[in-house]
Amino acid sequence: MNLAMIEAAAKRLAGHGRVTPLLSSPFVDEIAGRRVFVKSECLQHTGSFKYRGAWSAISAMDPAVRARGVIAFSSGNHAQGVALAARQHGVAAVIIMPEDAPRMKIDNTRALGAEVVLYDRARGEDRDEIGARISAERGLTLVKPFDNEFVIAGQGTTGLEIAAQAKAEGVEAGDVLVCCGGGGLTSGIALALEGHAPGMRVRPVEPEGFDDVARSLASGRIERNTGPAVGLCDAIITPSPGDMTFPIMARLCGPGLVVTDAQAKAAMRVAFERLKLVLEPGGAVAFAAALYHGDQIEGDAVIAVATGGNVDADLFAQILAEG
Amino acid sequence: MNLAMIEAAAKRLAGHGRVTPLLSSPFVDEIAGRRVFVKSECLQHTGSFKYRGAWSAISAMDPAVRARGVIAFSSGNHAQGVALAARQHGVAAVIIMPEDAPRMKIDNTRALGAEVVLYDRARGEDRDEIGARISAERGLTLVKPFDNEFVIAGQGTTGLEIAAQAKAEGVEAGDVLVCCGGGGLTSGIALALEGHAPGMRVRPVEPEGFDDVARSLASGRIERNTGPAVGLCDAIITPSPGDMTFPIMARLCGPGLVVTDAQAKAAMRVAFERLKLVLEPGGAVAFAAALYHGDQIEGDAVIAVATGGNVDADLFAQILAEG
Repeated sequence: MNLAMIEAAAKRLAGHGRVTPLLSSPFVDEIAGRRVFVKSECLQHTGSFKYRGAWSAISAMDPAVRARGVIAFSSGNHAQGVALAARQHGVAAVIIMPEDAPRMKIDNTRALGAEVVLYDRARGEDRDEIGARISAERGLTLVKPFDNEFVIAGQGTTGLEIAAQAKAEGVEAGDVLVCCGGGGLTSGIALALEGHAPGMRVRPVEPEGFDDVARSLASGRIERNTGPAVGLCDAIITPSPGDMTFPIMARLCGPGLVVTDAQAKAAMRVAFERLKLVLEPGGAVAFAAALYHGDQIEGDAVIAVATGGNVDADLFAQILAEG
Repeated sequence: MNLAMIEAAAKRLAGHGRVTPLLSSPFVDEIAGRRVFVKSECLQHTGSFKYRGAWSAISAMDPAVRARGVIAFSSGNHAQGVALAARQHGVAAVIIMPEDAPRMKIDNTRALGAEVVLYDRARGEDRDEIGARISAERGLTLVKPFDNEFVIAGQGTTGLEIAAQAKAEGVEAGDVLVCCGGGGLTSGIALALEGHAPGMRVRPVEPEGFDDVARSLASGRIERNTGPAVGLCDAIITPSPGDMTFPIMARLCGPGLVVTDAQAKAAMRVAFERLKLVLEPGGAVAFAAALYHGDQIEGDAVIAVATGGNVDADLFAQILAEG
């Protein structure tokens, strides 16, 4: 896993992925007490950065293997990314999703042409067993959400854009905060910035109660979340960092940050009001850290990656009303 | 008023204005029955395209004149654009606003450092008289919202970007739909595209009951709205096209389109769900026309300019809940 793989992914993504804007607002800077730039991946195709990794992985497959189709496990954003990238390559996609995933994510994945297989995580159904059976029957290739070099390379293209866009704003050093689940985006951006903006330091941001990456970085080994695997920030609730992503984060990333659900919601309201962006809770935690944990951040400027915007309308309206 | 003035404004705006993205979604294309691209000016500084014209006008002023300060009349978006551009030039701004303008717009204008003078339009207070008195006392220069060549040139820079971005998407012909109040943006884009994308046709879009521009284009002379000057789409409710903008629109623009408030709200919901954008009602009418008036649009692709996103949270939550 190296920078050249990210640069190769960027070439494959050219003309397919969207170069998302780096946004800012004087009102946001005032809240945060420093300059804040928001890399707006909620504006990426399918409403999250996951399209990058999915396109990267599917476009890199051997055509004969790809033609048999792909399969993925996802609570929703990786699902949509894989569904669209598969459809654009003209191949079938099967997505295994939990029954209690946000309705919009399930509906969109189906509407993008994927076959969705739901499982009941409350009843303890084994998604791996379900996936293995379907894959074996149909010869599908598994596209993992983060422990896959081509996926990490695709997510890392976000980092190439950040390096160039930040430089254009006169920013070449500072913390880059990334909403972190399994660490595919975080590790990909870290590798990209190591090569293209070595003055920047990547830091994962997680919701309270699901801070497996922060704890793993602190202890130096993979730590797991205990307790239920559901919460407001569904997109980034994962049991632990990946075997492939953790060593990269351990080598390159600064200490993790942790925000409360209330801070994630407040950040969604600020993004609505000041940036005109729709963020989902799990896509807002990095921005929340920039706004509300300034004491843990170094430098005059900070970059927060807003990773996704797939939130149901009723939840969004409720969060606005709480403000 | 010509293309060279727009190109000069683009040079002055470089490094200050934001090149806003041209967004799309397969779900949007499906509703519209053709490819739809959304020029996302809600992501411009201050949340609307008005910053372009304000910066263009203020940056072009004689420094000695500019130093005495500027004044503007606005229900809110021009207000914020002038306030920020004035502050960035280090000069004072006085903005005359109606008392019943959206709260966010008044608050933001003040927060951007402008002195806000409110008048009560229900009681028939004469804003022109108020403005003339303050200008005379303090030597302020009036920055009109649309009947000003430098303002039109600034708004026209949106058209230069549309031409380049659409070409990159393989689109060089088709209708460009623009939310239209006094016609500054519409006429500016029309002039820019006449030079840079002559296969495109600009068409103003207005809310039902405030279709002065559509009627003026149909009759060939300036027509006025009668009735109250307040409505859901506050940003684009103006009595008539401008003396400077109308001849440009009459020469270059296709027939106007008219949408209902219900269609504007539905377009806001689609922008929320599919593009992750916050649009205000008046900033959504062009997108609404693309979605719901396809029978009046020609071509395989259409471009809609989403002009602004300054909407109060309670109204936005209510509109989401109506969906």
